Amino acid sequence: MTKSKASAQAAHPLTLIPGPVEFTDEVLAAMATPSQSHVSPQFVEVFGDALALLRQLFFNTDKRAQTFAIAGAGTLGWDFVSANLIEPGEDALVLHTGYFADSLADCIATYGGKPTQLKAPIGDIVTLDAIETALKEKKFKVVTITHVDTSTGVLSDIKSIAALVRAVSPETLVIVDGVCSVGVEEIRFDDWDLDLVLTAPQKAIGVPAGLSIFIASGRALDVFRARKAPPTSYYASFAKWLPIMQNYEAKKPSYFSTPPVQNIHALLASLKQILAVPLADRFAAHARMSDRIKATIASYGLKQVAVREGYQANGMTAVYLPDGVALPDLLPRIASRGIVLAGGLHKEIATKYFRIGHMGVSVTDEDREDFDKALAAIKESLAEAGYTI
Amino acid sequence: MTKSKASAQAAHPLTLIPGPVEFTDEVLAAMATPSQSHVSPQFVEVFGDALALLRQLFFNTDKRAQTFAIAGAGTLGWDFVSANLIEPGEDALVLHTGYFADSLADCIATYGGKPTQLKAPIGDIVTLDAIETALKEKKFKVVTITHVDTSTGVLSDIKSIAALVRAVSPETLVIVDGVCSVGVEEIRFDDWDLDLVLTAPQKAIGVPAGLSIFIASGRALDVFRARKAPPTSYYASFAKWLPIMQNYEAKKPSYFSTPPVQNIHALLASLKQILAVPLADRFAAHARMSDRIKATIASYGLKQVAVREGYQANGMTAVYLPDGVALPDLLPRIASRGIVLAGGLHKEIATKYFRIGHMGVSVTDEDREDFDKALAAIKESLAEAGYTI
Repeated sequence: MTKSKASAQAAHPLTLIPGPVEFTDEVLAAMATPSQSHVSPQFVEVFGDALALLRQLFFNTDKRAQTFAIAGAGTLGWDFVSANLIEPGEDALVLHTGYFADSLADCIATYGGKPTQLKAPIGDIVTLDAIETALKEKKFKVVTITHVDTSTGVLSDIKSIAALVRAVSPETLVIVDGVCSVGVEEIRFDDWDLDLVLTAPQKAIGVPAGLSIFIASGRALDVFRARKAPPTSYYASFAKWLPIMQNYEAKKPSYFSTPPVQNIHALLASLKQILAVPLADRFAAHARMSDRIKATIASYGLKQVAVREGYQANGMTAVYLPDGVALPDLLPRIASRGIVLAGGLHKEIATKYFRIGHMGVSVTDEDREDFDKALAAIKESLAEAGYTI
Repeated sequence: MTKSKASAQAAHPLTLIPGPVEFTDEVLAAMATPSQSHVSPQFVEVFGDALALLRQLFFNTDKRAQTFAIAGAGTLGWDFVSANLIEPGEDALVLHTGYFADSLADCIATYGGKPTQLKAPIGDIVTLDAIETALKEKKFKVVTITHVDTSTGVLSDIKSIAALVRAVSPETLVIVDGVCSVGVEEIRFDDWDLDLVLTAPQKAIGVPAGLSIFIASGRALDVFRARKAPPTSYYASFAKWLPIMQNYEAKKPSYFSTPPVQNIHALLASLKQILAVPLADRFAAHARMSDRIKATIASYGLKQVAVREGYQANGMTAVYLPDGVALPDLLPRIASRGIVLAGGLHKEIATKYFRIGHMGVSVTDEDREDFDKALAAIKESLAEAGYTI
């Protein structure tokens, strides 16, 4: 638990959305690191340490796997998957638990892959039975899972899905979109035999947006090395970046494209804070806060978008509006109380719900009381908007 | 000219390489902006202003053109060009004045374009005659020019080349890699009838690495809209980003992929500082400093890699080592004096030269005396290494 102290940050609205989240003073100070050459010994040390610590976030010790941190965004991770692990004409099974699977399928198709979507009803998961049936119908190069769909707050059981894939279709790569899960949900990369987990820094990793972060397994890298043709992206190419990441982690300077020096400093600063306590404690703290928020929301008579018990994200909650309350009315009322929440994102229900992000320092530093303030602001704003709890 | 004052930055080695350059306190403070939602009114205002001010850097007023700032790197700009403006099988004429044209040709080929390189001898430019001959031999979809090749310090005359292209092959798009030129060399986007200029923030724009920045002309966007097939990248797709940039510039929130909020704040902070004085004064200050550095280097008996008078960059100088002095000996001696310079980058001569970057606040704030220190450090280190001036 981070000890509370006077923050160096100017008073600002609390950003309690499913990313970007609030950042610690230390992370923001690292963002302001004075200029450094990207090949200086000082920066090589920082980048190497960040790549090594990233492994810990995934409980990874198998060195055949490689962590990556590249200037970009979570979205860019999809290009890495689509351009390196799927060759044109190959099939991908895309498990759909919200908005982000549609985009990922679009990305795969852009690079010539053939996505097959397996869609859950809004707010629900894709069942293991449905996945097993699909896997038996066709040979898929990859299966993609959105661990937490940021548009719905649905949490998928990647451990069980990975085990099923390995049993039914052992060569199929298991790809996890962990944008809204890495740092808040348990992900045992080696033990669960995953092949690639991609994420972004501005959620539970607690670092400003600007990076594409992922880990690729030895199996995934071997599949890449066995490609019939080169990768179909230049910037999002394993061929370009794998040696760079290997070199930096070995504390050797290397150049393909200038890395975002300050963002990498911030990544290292946050990873050091995160890993200063056991990850199990971090996950438990997030689960407790999530339970509290979900229980409070229920006590207000509101329903979650994610309907199935046990398959609800620990880092965010998507909440249906009560009848008669509109988003453009409610969110500004909450904002006037210094709390920024997010509107809906899933196209079919976008105007009908709002989203609370509960990740990072707002959760782990309870002395900040961010969610006492947020839950009070929601309650007061609902009352103002005419909804009686 | 920025007034000198005590810097908030901790003492650190001066980074005087051709990017990243030294940053102002205001830019670094903006990098540490507390968290903001990427769709908050506050951030929308900042992003919109940054996109509008970017136009001024290119003397652009034609609103059919659009500026872009996207999480990534200068390199990613090549993917945008290759995936949106060149269709598979189409020809690209790549003017080669150093290392970066090889990489750009590689990028174009990755997306199915057919690059034809027109190579200058190391340190020299591609002549207008050679370009005219090439343009008459074949129909090229694009011509690419590295405005300043960071590996050699060769400055190309993009105005004359653009005029030639427009005269000989009017439909051919003129693409400028301005990574090491935007903010230090004059670029009149509208007047010179350019089609796309791409850059990165960590050079003369004076912002930490982490963005792909570019401006595309109305003609380029029309060519994109007339594509036979969709763009061949997902993240580097005009189709995805053009509406986002248009919306932010119109001060409307919009979502495709989370923008790097802090880097955009830093971009706006730097653009405000840059545009607080006439650009002509800024360019003149850089030209004066460049002349002084090049004259001093010559007075030490050293030769530039860029051999042709009038075609030498104003933001960097590439300098051949004297006989008997080795890079791994010289650069650490200079570094021990608190000055970080860069080694060679052009593969054929990499061990034979070093590079000085002279861009941004180190140039415009003369009270910092960064180059008095740097030139003294070079002189002393050469003497220590056994070279008598």
